[in-house]
Amino acid sequence: MTDYKKLWESMDIDLEKHDQLCNLLPGFFADVYLSQENRPEGMNYFNLVVSSIHGLRPEELKRHKDDGGKVVGTFCVYVPDELIVAAGAIGIGLCGGSQFWVPDGEKVLPKNTCPLIKSFMGAKITRTCPYFQSCDLLVGETTCDGKKKAWEILENYADIHVMHLPQMKRDVDIKAWVQEIEILKEKLEKLTGNEITPDKLKDAIRLINEKRRALKRLYELRKARPVPISGKDALLVSQIAFYDDPERFTSKVNDLCDELEERVKSGEGVFPAHAKRILITGTPMAIPNWKLHHIVESSGAVVVCEETCTGTRYFENFVEEASNTLEGQFRALAERYMKTNCACFTPNRGRIDDIIRLAREYEADGVIYYNLQFCQPYAVEYELVRRALQKEGIPVILIETDYSENDSEQVKTRVQAFLEMLG
Amino acid sequence: MTDYKKLWESMDIDLEKHDQLCNLLPGFFADVYLSQENRPEGMNYFNLVVSSIHGLRPEELKRHKDDGGKVVGTFCVYVPDELIVAAGAIGIGLCGGSQFWVPDGEKVLPKNTCPLIKSFMGAKITRTCPYFQSCDLLVGETTCDGKKKAWEILENYADIHVMHLPQMKRDVDIKAWVQEIEILKEKLEKLTGNEITPDKLKDAIRLINEKRRALKRLYELRKARPVPISGKDALLVSQIAFYDDPERFTSKVNDLCDELEERVKSGEGVFPAHAKRILITGTPMAIPNWKLHHIVESSGAVVVCEETCTGTRYFENFVEEASNTLEGQFRALAERYMKTNCACFTPNRGRIDDIIRLAREYEADGVIYYNLQFCQPYAVEYELVRRALQKEGIPVILIETDYSENDSEQVKTRVQAFLEMLG
Ligand code: SF4
Ligand code: SF4
Ligand code: SF4
Ligand code: SF4
Repeated sequence: MTDYKKLWESMDIDLEKHDQLCNLLPGFFADVYLSQENRPEGMNYFNLVVSSIHGLRPEELKRHKDDGGKVVGTFCVYVPDELIVAAGAIGIGLCGGSQFWVPDGEKVLPKNTCPLIKSFMGAKITRTCPYFQSCDLLVGETTCDGKKKAWEILENYADIHVMHLPQMKRDVDIKAWVQEIEILKEKLEKLTGNEITPDKLKDAIRLINEKRRALKRLYELRKARPVPISGKDALLVSQIAFYDDPERFTSKVNDLCDELEERVKSGEGVFPAHAKRILITGTPMAIPNWKLHHIVESSGAVVVCEETCTGTRYFENFVEEASNTLEGQFRALAERYMKTNCACFTPNRGRIDDIIRLAREYEADGVIYYNLQFCQPYAVEYELVRRALQKEGIPVILIETDYSENDSEQVKTRVQAFLEMLG
Repeated sequence: MTDYKKLWESMDIDLEKHDQLCNLLPGFFADVYLSQENRPEGMNYFNLVVSSIHGLRPEELKRHKDDGGKVVGTFCVYVPDELIVAAGAIGIGLCGGSQFWVPDGEKVLPKNTCPLIKSFMGAKITRTCPYFQSCDLLVGETTCDGKKKAWEILENYADIHVMHLPQMKRDVDIKAWVQEIEILKEKLEKLTGNEITPDKLKDAIRLINEKRRALKRLYELRKARPVPISGKDALLVSQIAFYDDPERFTSKVNDLCDELEERVKSGEGVFPAHAKRILITGTPMAIPNWKLHHIVESSGAVVVCEETCTGTRYFENFVEEASNTLEGQFRALAERYMKTNCACFTPNRGRIDDIIRLAREYEADGVIYYNLQFCQPYAVEYELVRRALQKEGIPVILIETDYSENDSEQVKTRVQAFLEMLG
């Protein structure tokens, strides 16, 4: 602990407020996670990463920085990690999942803003997040209104580069995204002093593709009945993907998958084979936002898949690896990223197709549409998803909530009524 | 009335529901407008237009359509009217300002959506707006999340073309806006069967510039002390600009200005010279949204300027008229439109500069930041505006409200406290 205190001081962390935060997590994690039965051995690594979330990895970032390396924070799965890696920097996904930071975020943002945005804003302005404090550059994007405008506030507290994400997916938009990737490349080269060469980018593309493959493998295993891993555990792995070292993470996920494969072979599961299978779709769940999964899985059902940015949207679709020129690689990156279906785009029919496909592939009994309060893109899109799922005969319920525990009982009641309705 | 009934039937209007709507407006208009004293004679035309809002102009649209003409509905001041006029079509600004339509909008949109969007959506799905019913094509844009996503619902009820409005204003974005203008041109040519030639576009640019000049002239006159026209009346003129015939409208505004010039010369005003002068900035006020102006002016202060889309943003900046090629004209259009400072852009420092400049030019004693509830771009931007105005020593208050009368008393109390504070 003494060591970490020095580390935190070196990051200009508000130690007193930070202590309050650090005192909350262990009990919360124990309640939600350690209470589960028959967890895979392979989860031990991820437990460790979470339990020292403000120590182990931040220390690695510090060492990297002490050696002259740079750390780059991102907030959206459209920002290509590959470029950050190719520039020799470390990329960290910074989305805020904790209620702890929300009140401070509300000091500079309207209350009517999605909790994810208020949370990361609070994390920065209170100087209590070692990841934020480690960042030499933040990379924002023009996705939803809340984030698009939040950068203008955030830039008073940190260096930020904003990528102009197109709002449509025509060929002209993919070309525009290529341009944005070029601009980011220049920015990263200047920041790090490292040139991004086709060779380095090729390695980075492979590295991140490997990470995606590992996550895909994990998700494939969740298709088994009985399911060999809880939704909560799978979610935790997805969440850790955003800030862990990619190579180590990939190998740990693959170890976990080896174990789960054995479970599937022997028919071993963490929920009975007849447990109701739930697909969650909607807004991201940043660590430590485990609220909905905990409610579902404490009610006897199991979450088998997340069509979210902390789920399939993060790892589906690979970047074409063949190209040996930056031009070709940038195009390949743009094409891969523009295949992701976020409600920030219009139209976004692809997401509806994804939900229907995933519901079938994972044999979901029902879909929970998860909406962070005040997230307009996903809230509006619910109407279209509802109509489409109704046509397909797939039951769906909308759960709109924030990070507080105020509505937990109410959410629980609604989820349980939905599960009963599934029969 | 019988005539209009036939007109409305021909537009597939829900007559019963429409009657309810039509019964509300006259009393409301009388309360808010006709109660004012010493109104300029020149307002008579605008009174007439409002009092037969569902008759006179819709009948003109019908005649135009009977002659084979087309009507195009728009929702944002970034959509270039000039192109619509050059294609021989009539452009109508469709933003919804009535609470009447909100509950129906909420049937397909989240309650957490700005009332303007819920209102126009309700207008369309209930088939009670003759303007909406007259449109052969709607032109949407990717501005805020609410509108960007609403098009996907609206397209189930009407033909809609969505323009991809960039979220930034770099040169690459202006070029992208040129491309969007080209795409709209093709679309309009196909719709109308008319070619858009440089000559026709030149005429259209002149016509719309003239309209802007007339509105600018009107606003300039509001700088006088005492002010020769109420804020409510000026707002009404701005609102009518969105759907009236541009040529007639321009001439009527100029007539009004002639009269106001006389008033200014003779020192005649509608409020005492010492009345507190208020600049309103923020989200648009679509007809019949007169709520805030009515509260301010019933409290003894006067609104002297609106930095809104139903105010300066609509008419400031003219399109360069020199070019004789479509290429040059499109560039000129893109440049003019991209000078408008809406909170949908990031960054949007230009708007802050505008507010400070206008507050000085109009000798405003205070600024009311008007925010339609759940409008995130403007709500977030408030923090930045507040900080900037504080630095300049300009008092500012945030009024967040919707179209209902539920909070009128509360808004009134807050406005009056603000006015008292101005001393
Ligand atoms: S939900 Fe959309 S905006 Fe948010 S992180 Fe995912 S892709 Fe980005
Ligand atoms: S959850 Fe919605 S509002 Fe929040 S950051 Fe993501 S897209 Fe934006
Ligand atoms: S406020 Fe912005 S989005 Fe709305 S009409 Fe004005 S320019 Fe368009
Ligand atoms: S007021 Fe705000 S939320 Fe409403 S349409 Fe305009 S920009 Fe969008």
